[in-house]
Amino acid sequence: MSDLSPAAASDATAAPDETAAPDETAPLRVALLGAGTVGSAVARTLTHEADDLAARTGRRLELVGVAVRRAGRDRADLGVDPALFTTDAAELVTRADIVIELIGGIDPAKELILSAMAHGASVVTGNKALLAEAGPTLYAAADEHGVDLYYEAAVAGAIPIVRPIRDSLAGDRIDRVIGILNGTTNFVLDAMDSTGAGFTETVERAQALGYAEADPTADVEGFDAAAKAAILASLAFHTRVGIEHVHREGITEVSAGDIAAAKEMGCVIKLLGICERTVVDESGGEGISVRVHPAMIPLGHPLASVREAFNAVFVEAGSAGELMFYGQGAGGDPTASAVLGDVVAVARHRVAGGKGPGESAYADLPVLPMGRARTRYHVSLDVADRSGVLAKVAQVFAAHEVSIETVRQQVVTEDEDGTPTPPRAALVIVTHSAEDAALSATVDALAELDIVREVTSVLRVEGS
Amino acid sequence: MSDLSPAAASDATAAPDETAAPDETAPLRVALLGAGTVGSAVARTLTHEADDLAARTGRRLELVGVAVRRAGRDRADLGVDPALFTTDAAELVTRADIVIELIGGIDPAKELILSAMAHGASVVTGNKALLAEAGPTLYAAADEHGVDLYYEAAVAGAIPIVRPIRDSLAGDRIDRVIGILNGTTNFVLDAMDSTGAGFTETVERAQALGYAEADPTADVEGFDAAAKAAILASLAFHTRVGIEHVHREGITEVSAGDIAAAKEMGCVIKLLGICERTVVDESGGEGISVRVHPAMIPLGHPLASVREAFNAVFVEAGSAGELMFYGQGAGGDPTASAVLGDVVAVARHRVAGGKGPGESAYADLPVLPMGRARTRYHVSLDVADRSGVLAKVAQVFAAHEVSIETVRQQVVTEDEDGTPTPPRAALVIVTHSAEDAALSATVDALAELDIVREVTSVLRVEGS
Repeated sequence: MSDLSPAAASDATAAPDETAAPDETAPLRVALLGAGTVGSAVARTLTHEADDLAARTGRRLELVGVAVRRAGRDRADLGVDPALFTTDAAELVTRADIVIELIGGIDPAKELILSAMAHGASVVTGNKALLAEAGPTLYAAADEHGVDLYYEAAVAGAIPIVRPIRDSLAGDRIDRVIGILNGTTNFVLDAMDSTGAGFTETVERAQALGYAEADPTADVEGFDAAAKAAILASLAFHTRVGIEHVHREGITEVSAGDIAAAKEMGCVIKLLGICERTVVDESGGEGISVRVHPAMIPLGHPLASVREAFNAVFVEAGSAGELMFYGQGAGGDPTASAVLGDVVAVARHRVAGGKGPGESAYADLPVLPMGRARTRYHVSLDVADRSGVLAKVAQVFAAHEVSIETVRQQVVTEDEDGTPTPPRAALVIVTHSAEDAALSATVDALAELDIVREVTSVLRVEGS
Repeated sequence: MSDLSPAAASDATAAPDETAAPDETAPLRVALLGAGTVGSAVARTLTHEADDLAARTGRRLELVGVAVRRAGRDRADLGVDPALFTTDAAELVTRADIVIELIGGIDPAKELILSAMAHGASVVTGNKALLAEAGPTLYAAADEHGVDLYYEAAVAGAIPIVRPIRDSLAGDRIDRVIGILNGTTNFVLDAMDSTGAGFTETVERAQALGYAEADPTADVEGFDAAAKAAILASLAFHTRVGIEHVHREGITEVSAGDIAAAKEMGCVIKLLGICERTVVDESGGEGISVRVHPAMIPLGHPLASVREAFNAVFVEAGSAGELMFYGQGAGGDPTASAVLGDVVAVARHRVAGGKGPGESAYADLPVLPMGRARTRYHVSLDVADRSGVLAKVAQVFAAHEVSIETVRQQVVTEDEDGTPTPPRAALVIVTHSAEDAALSATVDALAELDIVREVTSVLRVEGS
């Protein structure tokens, strides 16, 4: 479509224009991109709760179009005038005060958002992948055009977390954010914990129950959580963190044995997104570590009781101390709640003047490689039952300057099926905190020892 | 001091003036009223973290005065220029862009805030008593003068809860807010639960540990929680709710026996602030119930695991579902974190233009009397061990249209010290949900029965 077509020209007349006096009674024009689960829930609320939203905003919100991929589907339940559906998203974004982007992915979402901003619209999005990949570009465009870019729905669904970190804690110093950021993986790990079942069969059950996608890769490999961790780290540390900075390990390697080992330790295994501030040199210089991996956390930690598909974000701040935010991390209605909170916020800015805070990247802290992250390891070894084994194992830890917190040794004289075997020992070692590179090198060296038959499992321990 | 004195005239020149062009590089002038625990923590952060705060705000925040009751005390640790201390709060508020009120109480806090606003300052306060008593007056003044009134610190200390309810959930419909809003009472109830000790000795222990004041009335009688519940209800339901609307019962009557009875039920007792939306007539008209009282909640409820002096607020919203916010509800540093988050927010509004949302009272729902609140009762009775007792008791419930969920009967044949007694029975009854008036009338009628020796305890049950 050409910008010079008569239709576009008449749209342009209606678009915000800094030289014309704004009409203070005209409704704010809202364009919705995408009518999937979340988009449908947003459309329904915009339509059915219009009076409440107007009272809270100070102006009516008028849905001026819903961009869909395919026209003609029956969407009568949304309560939206069928004439508002369009397949021309590029045109729609040029004639709105607020654009809600819920189509996901990088293209064409990115171009549509940039075009919307260039045409003067504030943007509300739930697109974590796009923010984690192109956040700075989008922020710069919002800044250039004097519009808002809000994205509460991109992290932990319905849970208010972007606004608390960005606004409520703006006068504090955040040291650590640990989140259960993906509902599918929490459901799977929680079910493995309650049933003792293995990973594969539990994923199949989660798929049958609708908690996991047919292709669960984005969830179980940690991609989804990594994008969210990048966004949280950017906000918490006033530093640009992209998905490429996030160390990522999924839960596909977590076995029923690992879960059982965690139970024996009084722990549960969770897939955690961890954003951490660390002192990196003797002069007190700081860096940050951003990573997603499964880890044991003690049952007494507030995150340990987050069950099923719930999400939670645990924040440690210098003055505020420990905070936790808990709720539903996905689903149409919960995510729509976060989207609409943002819509009301950016609409209030239109009505009352001003705009929300933009990108804050002033601190510009270095993002450390995974090897520099400080963590603790839980290592299970299958070793020969000989005298001196523990001494040799302990020596390997000492050589890497990794300090051992506890060792538990158990002699095994039969197989899992009860057949007698030559005596061997299971050694379970939990370390004190050390750099991941040193811990990882220790495990490699242990695997080389002739007295070590097998490194049965290696898990990080967090939250203590 | 006269407004016409030369000093005042020169201050007035520096004050915000809509006709003069604002100086976009001048620092924002911050006045602090009160240098107690929270005020001192705020002053320290304003001084020591000035660079970070400037980067986040977009302008430097300059502390221009600290109003204290008595001059001359040593406050060197605040890092504040001693010349900034003043006992003339009334003068100080006339020469600031942002006034932080941390003196508490109604007078002179109210007049100082109103004067600050009249002189063009935005106000940040942690004064829950004042907000619960005079919120509408303060909001009206903020609106009249085009300034912000922020008060995150007034509810649940460091926990971001005002902003999530007001902003993040602005596009949702909040049905219920249940909060553990007072750290002292939670500490006491939690300690009673772990130790089995009684109320009086536990309060003494809490006082010795600094968790309870020498005069604990405001906490243990629920006044503090009631003020916070009023604020939460106002925000959640877009309705003016003052402290006078809040039904309030403290924890002084909670006995070791009640705690034990809760344990047998798989519950814990918490002092809860409950703000609830209820349908009040057949046409679907709504009212709200706001109340503070001790209640049993099941161990599986997220609020049950809130230990020691921590606070938490559990929110149920139409789209978002269940959310919980957890953290420290009091203390100098945690509360200062909430204050400074607000300071940065109102400062950003000064820099970027605009102001935050004002009072939202459009829904104007009726606040129901306690008798109309729907709840469940746990009633313990000491009854004669005769046949037909249960039938008579059940009849009383039925006559008041209160439905019984469970009954547990236990025959007692000896005293607590082992002396044989005539057989009698302990009856424990848990009801389904009913109006509090009907439940309360049921208990009164039970007490009149000749087969009931004593109504041993009556506790509400929530959160299921």
